[in-house]
Amino acid sequence: MKQNIYDNNEFFQKYQALRARENNYNRLLEQPNFQALVPDLMERNVLDIGCGSGDFAAFCLSKGASNVKGIDISQNMITAAEEKYSHARLQFEQVAFEDAEVIEGSIDFISSSLAFHYFADFDALIKKISTALCTNGTLLFSMEHPIVTANKEMDSWICDTQGNYLYYALDNYHEEGYRTQTWLVDGVVMYHRTLSTIINTLVINGLQIEKILEPIPTLEATRKLPSIAKEIRRPSFLIIRAKKLPNYI
Amino acid sequence: MKQNIYDNNEFFQKYQALRARENNYNRLLEQPNFQALVPDLMERNVLDIGCGSGDFAAFCLSKGASNVKGIDISQNMITAAEEKYSHARLQFEQVAFEDAEVIEGSIDFISSSLAFHYFADFDALIKKISTALCTNGTLLFSMEHPIVTANKEMDSWICDTQGNYLYYALDNYHEEGYRTQTWLVDGVVMYHRTLSTIINTLVINGLQIEKILEPIPTLEATRKLPSIAKEIRRPSFLIIRAKKLPNYI
Repeated sequence: MKQNIYDNNEFFQKYQALRARENNYNRLLEQPNFQALVPDLMERNVLDIGCGSGDFAAFCLSKGASNVKGIDISQNMITAAEEKYSHARLQFEQVAFEDAEVIEGSIDFISSSLAFHYFADFDALIKKISTALCTNGTLLFSMEHPIVTANKEMDSWICDTQGNYLYYALDNYHEEGYRTQTWLVDGVVMYHRTLSTIINTLVINGLQIEKILEPIPTLEATRKLPSIAKEIRRPSFLIIRAKKLPNYI
Repeated sequence: MKQNIYDNNEFFQKYQALRARENNYNRLLEQPNFQALVPDLMERNVLDIGCGSGDFAAFCLSKGASNVKGIDISQNMITAAEEKYSHARLQFEQVAFEDAEVIEGSIDFISSSLAFHYFADFDALIKKISTALCTNGTLLFSMEHPIVTANKEMDSWICDTQGNYLYYALDNYHEEGYRTQTWLVDGVVMYHRTLSTIINTLVINGLQIEKILEPIPTLEATRKLPSIAKEIRRPSFLIIRAKKLPNYI
């Protein structure tokens, strides 16, 4: 079953409040690193999977893409995106990627920011992406780091009695599958995959690894949000850029 | 300074005793997974870096390699290898890879089992390997997993008062550099690099990732050595196979 937690109104309101904060992990850490890996988009055809309220899709448009389509399973998100951005070369559609129609070899750049950990079938996801990409097309995605999703508790920092972070408690790394977590509301489902599963799934589907980032906060980010310094001790995110190989069938 | 801990006699004797055990992590976990990734070696030229007592070099010879050279910084190890194996197509040499002379594009397969975490300059190591490999040649290596080397304590499992393993304490992930550890003797130096550093160093040196393994023990291995079941909760090793790209300068 495809999860559509962003159409849970309590979740959505809390999520929008979190994202509206000037200093959050997305703005300070994930997006700067993600955007730094965006290839040349001039005259390119772009698909953004899990587009949320459309900020990254609009960013791609600003980089000269000829067409950008943002899709999201959540009608709340698509409505927010359509209210925020309107442009002839930018479309939004409420659809799960699993159900979206894609034309083989039609897309130059597929992006997805912090959505892949919601997909139940990672192999099917990557296979469909590889089919949709043209030769030498690029996939760029970020997801929760396997070190984080491994645990059956979302936040596994162990603190002393004064609230100082002692270390991060890691467990269950090779137990792939869903994790039911409390993040804003109870019962948010994410899927844990090991690093080797993630990389090998890309490779067997003809996607060549070009770059991996485990983002580190800048000093400026740490000044704005001191708690983000923990990322140096244990990364929250994994960002991967991969290229569709020629001659891959 | 290049570390040569294997020529510390106390270390070497303890290491040989550990390796002689029928049930150790190398025999039950690392080597079966490592060997499973060995490409076709028929008529191939092989270099094994950190060959130890020569078992893997001899394995390569048994797979039809035309020539196998095993190198190790430790004279103790090279002496052990020469006592154990003797064959016209198999050579051993006591030399650090940093100091070894290699001919550009001359080697089909470079292997290294559990030695790369001893190298101080990972970029120089991979650059030299890439230079030595022929086009479409293969690099296969295993190393301590970054999850393990991150910590400044070698074994960071946290136990309850009954000695049950509660979880693994992870810290200092992004603090790359040396770790002085007690393993068999005090003061063994290993180098921690993040996963992203490891992968990106391969990529920028023209080595394309083909497969990554984080070995899981078989049921049979767990029966022989019950404590190895912890590997399901937190992997100790990372094994990577990569291919030298054509047209890489």
